[in-house]
Amino acid sequence: MNALWLENNQISLRDIPQPQTTNTIKNEALIKIRKAGICSTDLELVKGYYPYTGVPGHEFVGDVVEADDASWVGQRVVGEINAVCNQCEQCLNGRSTHCENRTVLGIVNRDGVFAEYTTLPIANLHKVPDSVPDEMAVFTEPLAAALEIQEQVQVKPTDRVLLIGAGRLGQLIAQTLSLIGCDLRVVARHKHQQDLLKTRGIRIISEEEIQPWRWDVVVEATGSPSGFSLARQAIRPRGTLVLKSTYKGEMSVNFSSIVVDEINIVGSRCGPFEPALRLMESKQVDPTVLIDSEFTLKEALKAFEHAAETGVLKVLVKP
Amino acid sequence: MNALWLENNQISLRDIPQPQTTNTIKNEALIKIRKAGICSTDLELVKGYYPYTGVPGHEFVGDVVEADDASWVGQRVVGEINAVCNQCEQCLNGRSTHCENRTVLGIVNRDGVFAEYTTLPIANLHKVPDSVPDEMAVFTEPLAAALEIQEQVQVKPTDRVLLIGAGRLGQLIAQTLSLIGCDLRVVARHKHQQDLLKTRGIRIISEEEIQPWRWDVVVEATGSPSGFSLARQAIRPRGTLVLKSTYKGEMSVNFSSIVVDEINIVGSRCGPFEPALRLMESKQVDPTVLIDSEFTLKEALKAFEHAAETGVLKVLVKP
Repeated sequence: MNALWLENNQISLRDIPQPQTTNTIKNEALIKIRKAGICSTDLELVKGYYPYTGVPGHEFVGDVVEADDASWVGQRVVGEINAVCNQCEQCLNGRSTHCENRTVLGIVNRDGVFAEYTTLPIANLHKVPDSVPDEMAVFTEPLAAALEIQEQVQVKPTDRVLLIGAGRLGQLIAQTLSLIGCDLRVVARHKHQQDLLKTRGIRIISEEEIQPWRWDVVVEATGSPSGFSLARQAIRPRGTLVLKSTYKGEMSVNFSSIVVDEINIVGSRCGPFEPALRLMESKQVDPTVLIDSEFTLKEALKAFEHAAETGVLKVLVKP
Repeated sequence: MNALWLENNQISLRDIPQPQTTNTIKNEALIKIRKAGICSTDLELVKGYYPYTGVPGHEFVGDVVEADDASWVGQRVVGEINAVCNQCEQCLNGRSTHCENRTVLGIVNRDGVFAEYTTLPIANLHKVPDSVPDEMAVFTEPLAAALEIQEQVQVKPTDRVLLIGAGRLGQLIAQTLSLIGCDLRVVARHKHQQDLLKTRGIRIISEEEIQPWRWDVVVEATGSPSGFSLARQAIRPRGTLVLKSTYKGEMSVNFSSIVVDEINIVGSRCGPFEPALRLMESKQVDPTVLIDSEFTLKEALKAFEHAAETGVLKVLVKP
């Protein structure tokens, strides 16, 4: 089958064997990809953020074409990206996204979705409601990641919330946080990002307007030291600073001031799929406004180049 | 009056004017010091951790000798160290220890307790129960700081809790956490620290025995980069890392791993006095076991020298 292949920080198109599942790996499903999305993590992988060799990509919607459990065959699905052991201490304590033996779709030891087919454990699959079209369903994974904030932190309707960053993930976070009714302001660098937020009635704020020491919750979604620094200045004493992006290498931070101000720093990663599907089904969140363009799998190299350009939001890839 | 004086990172004994309160500063009490305790913060102030000029010291028990409200005169008291404005956003939102206009006893713009007399707002004072002797009451402030952990974080009886550091504050944290019934282990460097813990049935653990990625709550009370690093290795995914000490300068940390493991980092400072007094009154906590020695105020320089020696726990100063 056709697939994008990542090796030694180089992506190329390859013809690789189609994955086999039935009668080989129990409880795994073979999925024919309908659409896949390029995420910042994919771009970071290419830059060498993590030493991965294989098919990249973890945001997708597709059809089950093979599965032990026949009831799944023909279902249109999205899939959680962590394939877990169900036996380690993390799995047994309800933290399976932190499974100690996990493989991660297109990220850790498991071929991803920029290909004609992929495989995932059936336990990872979620059926997509008929009313949710492919171009919406393909956002389930990043939308779930946005919702993880509320799985971890109680964001109150009376909270002043600052979101720093309005890129791919930031836009989805803005949409979900705005549903709380909190006093949300978003730092968005690019006009296109600002316009998307304004259309939904979400308020933007310039860095200069940010009152220091005043925000109950700050979500840092830029992954840059300057974003972290801005977040640190904005957060109030005993406030919660959510880190919703990864940072290159180490970052130097004054921890004494974090102790003195009793700041709460929360790292946040993968989130729950079902609420993401519900919010799209009820049209309370609309990720499709983020779509910049769609490329075919054969144009995937061009798609990656385009996705890496400044300010570009979601680029989709269709086999 | 006799007082210890800190200026340009130098401490010296001085004869300074006795503070005046009645008819000069409303709602402040004049307090005659019975005993004061040397805290690591005092030692750090001398090293230049914060540019403070004045009388250092913030742990004390004393008698009210003057107060607008006559009912306070003659009372044996301890006192909260943050003198606050009751008007700023922090005060108005129940975070008065973070008052934006605060002075802090012996730390920020307010003469402290290594002196014959000190002053504090009456609102800061707590009467000491008769059954709590001076040598116990003088620990109210650091014991309250230990309890602040439980004000911020729900530590469960079923939690595996690792405490790194068993010095002045660490010993009090160990005593309070052990009351929860959690599976508590303490990293204690010095034999004397270990023996104090063992006497109370608190288990110690060597750095080598610490299983990485297994602890629900880790309290870092050393203030050293190596302590932070150990804490980071020990904490489980989605665990809570409490920073209960200040750190010199900046510290370099891999924040990506904090995001991937969804770690919660909580800075923790001043705590509630009344629960501290209750736990001492009920003898569920006994801080007096930490007392190393007592010096007179005239010997205060020697007291500071001794307190700075490795492994020395609480040194008291008596005017």
